[in-house]
Amino acid sequence: MRSQSNDRHPELVIALNHLIDAGGKRIRPALVLLTGKMLGGDHDKLITSAAAVEMLHSATLVHDDLIDGSLLRRGNPTLNSHWSAATTVLTGDFIFAQAAKLAASTDCLPLMKLFAETLAMIVNGELTQLFSSRGVANRENYDQRIYAKTASLFEMSSRAAAMISPVEQDVVEIMQRFGRNLGMAFQIVDDILDFTGNQDSVGKPVGSDLLQGLITLPTLYYIQKNPDDERIPHLLNGSFLSHRDEIIELVQSIRESDSIKMALQDATKLVDQSIDLLKTMPDGEEKQGLEYMAKFIVAREI
Amino acid sequence: MRSQSNDRHPELVIALNHLIDAGGKRIRPALVLLTGKMLGGDHDKLITSAAAVEMLHSATLVHDDLIDGSLLRRGNPTLNSHWSAATTVLTGDFIFAQAAKLAASTDCLPLMKLFAETLAMIVNGELTQLFSSRGVANRENYDQRIYAKTASLFEMSSRAAAMISPVEQDVVEIMQRFGRNLGMAFQIVDDILDFTGNQDSVGKPVGSDLLQGLITLPTLYYIQKNPDDERIPHLLNGSFLSHRDEIIELVQSIRESDSIKMALQDATKLVDQSIDLLKTMPDGEEKQGLEYMAKFIVAREI
Repeated sequence: MRSQSNDRHPELVIALNHLIDAGGKRIRPALVLLTGKMLGGDHDKLITSAAAVEMLHSATLVHDDLIDGSLLRRGNPTLNSHWSAATTVLTGDFIFAQAAKLAASTDCLPLMKLFAETLAMIVNGELTQLFSSRGVANRENYDQRIYAKTASLFEMSSRAAAMISPVEQDVVEIMQRFGRNLGMAFQIVDDILDFTGNQDSVGKPVGSDLLQGLITLPTLYYIQKNPDDERIPHLLNGSFLSHRDEIIELVQSIRESDSIKMALQDATKLVDQSIDLLKTMPDGEEKQGLEYMAKFIVAREI
Repeated sequence: MRSQSNDRHPELVIALNHLIDAGGKRIRPALVLLTGKMLGGDHDKLITSAAAVEMLHSATLVHDDLIDGSLLRRGNPTLNSHWSAATTVLTGDFIFAQAAKLAASTDCLPLMKLFAETLAMIVNGELTQLFSSRGVANRENYDQRIYAKTASLFEMSSRAAAMISPVEQDVVEIMQRFGRNLGMAFQIVDDILDFTGNQDSVGKPVGSDLLQGLITLPTLYYIQKNPDDERIPHLLNGSFLSHRDEIIELVQSIRESDSIKMALQDATKLVDQSIDLLKTMPDGEEKQGLEYMAKFIVAREI
C-alpha cells in the first residue's frame, strides 16, 4: 500500500501515509489472505488483491467521512478534518485509481470486473442511504443496505481470493457466501456497537445512527417489541432532528432493552452459518484463522 | 453510457442523465473509434472502450467542478450547482466505477492497467495544480501540467484503441504519440480560449485561469515579451487575489498581444506533427476523420 504513493505530489504522500498509519483492523485483506492461502493461491497475487481490497475500502471511507462531515474515524482525525474538501475528494480518487491498478495487476479479468461492480454497489448503496434511508423501518431494506455498505466488499474479498486460486467454481461460490455472511454479521455488530460502545473505542458519538434518523437492527427489534413507544413516530415521520432530546432518550432505552441481544443473536447465527460453510474446506492454520476471524466478529467489545 | 445507470437509485439516474444530456464534443470517444476502426479493431470492444474513456473523463469533470465550485460547464449548470456536495462526490465515484467496469469488459488487461494509471496521473495532476501551480511561470511545468490534465487521456484514447486492434507494438506507439500531441494542442487551445472566448461559448468567465493565479501558455509568452510589465509581480508573488483589478487589465493586455498568436503557433505545430504521424497508417475515411479532428482542434472558435 505504501509503495503506491511513490513519485506523487508531497501533499498526497502525506495524506496517504496519514491514512495508512491510522491503521484499522485490516479484516478484509486478512480475509483475502487466509482464504487464498487455504486454497493454495499464488502468494504475490493474494498480496496484491488484499492491498486492492483495503485501498478500495479506504477510498470509500475517505469520501464517506467527507460526506458525513465526520471528524473522527477509528478514534483518529479523518482526512477532511485536516485537509480541504478538494484534497479529500482527490485523495479518495487517487486511492480508487491505485486500487484499480492493483486489481488489474492480478492479471485476472473476472476479478477486475468484480472489483468495478463492487465499487458501483457500494456507491449506489451510499446514495440510497443518503436519500431514502431515513426513517425506513423494514428488515428487507436493512439487509439490502448492509449488504451494499459492508457485506458486498467482504463477499468480494473471499470470492476474489478463491477466484485466483486453483479451485472449482463451487468452492468460489461457497467462499463467496462465507464472506457475505461474515460481512452481514460484521455490520450488524457495528450497528450494535453504535448503541453499546463508548465514544473512545468506536470513534464516534453513541447513538449517532439514530440521531441521524437511520434505523438499524437494534431499533428494528425495539420497534417490534414496543410499537406504542411515543418517541418512535419522530423517527418514522422524519421529525427526528427537531426531537433530538427524545431521540437521545430513545437511544438509552434501546441500550437497556433486549433488542441488543436479539440483534446479536442474528449476527451469531450468520457467523455460525459461515463456520459451517468451511467444513468442506482444506484443514490447516488458515481455516482455523478464518474460524477465529468469524468468531472475533461477534466478540468485538460488546 | 446510458445503459450504465440501469437499476440504480433514482437520484443517481437523474444526475447521470443530466450529465449525458449536457453533451460536449465527445472528442475522446471519437478518437478511440476512428483510431480503432482505421486499424481494424473489433466494433463492440471499441464502443466499450470509447464509453469507458468518456465516462472516466466525465467523472473527473464532476469532481473538478465540485472542487473549483464551478457553476457552469459547457454553458450548462454543473452537477454541484444543483445537487449537494455529497451527491456530487458519490455520482463521480459511481461514474468511475462504471468506467472501470466498461474498461474491464474489453477483456484486455493492459488496457485495464493503462486505464488505472491514467486516472492516477490525472488526479495527481489535479492535486499538483491545486497546491503548486499558482504563479509558476515555467514552460516545462506548463507542459507537465497539460499532459497530466488533458493529454494523458487523449494519449490513452488512441493507445487503447490501437491496443485492442490487430496491430504491432510500433503502431500502438505511433498512435499513442498521435493522441498525446493532439491532447497537448487541445489544452493549449483551451487555454487560449480562456482569454479570447466569450463567456457564452466557453461556459466560464474570460480570463478565469489568470484570475486564479494560473499561468498558461499565452501568459508565459506575454511575460517573455514584457518582462517589465508592473502587473506581473502580482502573479508571481501570489498577491493576485488582492490585485484583481490589475489582473483583469492584464487579461485584456494579453488578449490584445501577440502572445495569443504565438501560443496558437505551438498548438498548430503539434497538430501538424500529429498529421505527419498518420502517414504510415491505412488510408480511408477513418484516417481522414482523424486528420479532420486534428485540424478542428486549432480551428475552434478562435
